[in-house]
Amino acid sequence: MRVMVGGTFDPLHAGHRKLLTRSFQVAGQDGLVTIGITTDEFAGSKIHPVRPFEERRRDVEEFIRENDFAAGWMIEPLSDRYGSALEADFDALVVSEETFPVAVEINELRRNRGRKKVDIHEISCVLAEDGRRISSTRIYRGEIDSCGQLVR
Amino acid sequence: MRVMVGGTFDPLHAGHRKLLTRSFQVAGQDGLVTIGITTDEFAGSKIHPVRPFEERRRDVEEFIRENDFAAGWMIEPLSDRYGSALEADFDALVVSEETFPVAVEINELRRNRGRKKVDIHEISCVLAEDGRRISSTRIYRGEIDSCGQLVR
Repeated sequence: MRVMVGGTFDPLHAGHRKLLTRSFQVAGQDGLVTIGITTDEFAGSKIHPVRPFEERRRDVEEFIRENDFAAGWMIEPLSDRYGSALEADFDALVVSEETFPVAVEINELRRNRGRKKVDIHEISCVLAEDGRRISSTRIYRGEIDSCGQLVR
Repeated sequence: MRVMVGGTFDPLHAGHRKLLTRSFQVAGQDGLVTIGITTDEFAGSKIHPVRPFEERRRDVEEFIRENDFAAGWMIEPLSDRYGSALEADFDALVVSEETFPVAVEINELRRNRGRKKVDIHEISCVLAEDGRRISSTRIYRGEIDSCGQLVR
């Protein structure tokens, strides 16, 4: 399958690793995964500082190479929430529980443009050691590390 | 991945064929697909007549064999909306847009039982020739055939 996934990926935590791994699993052997990474300008609206695009891209690429996934892949800079997902011909969006509503919005916008709707694969969230969700904000606050372990 | 999917599958129409095909694609080569088929008693609450379980099962099995999917599979009779999905150790539920809320409910019930939540893969609906959704009810009413063509 042709799969699209997106994020800021800073830092690349256990939730992102699951999101990317699932994207490649859903895409399958002959599939293609397009990974949207937010541009510095677009990511600048976050409530915490974000590392430069090239560093974030390098971490995503390293993770993919280390895992030796079967499907092909490409990186796309995202300067808004949709990127090329409104127009591209693909099969499924892979999202987290938080970004599921964006996928529903993408499907509505696609339908308005006469494009076919795509499947939505929502991954179940990855929990930190304390049973709460892993998020970049929590990591930046120094509560947890990128594997979800509490920082003591 | 280990995937679960369910339905009444009567008659086995283009929407069901996409649901099953996607389940096998998401499961991947080394995966396992558990296909829940409603029992006659549970399916009896539908607003249209339903063929016996064994006939519906035979059609699902024939479709799977014809397609030569890579993943393993098994059939489970479903006597309620959940079957073994509340307790089983698996990775993803594959659902249609109509049954997405059941998947969310299953995840809530799993969490209450101390089980991990699973991914939810929602397939985009298959449209009939008239641009409206394919459904068993429409086929029983004689509006469309199982491929979604209008019956004239």
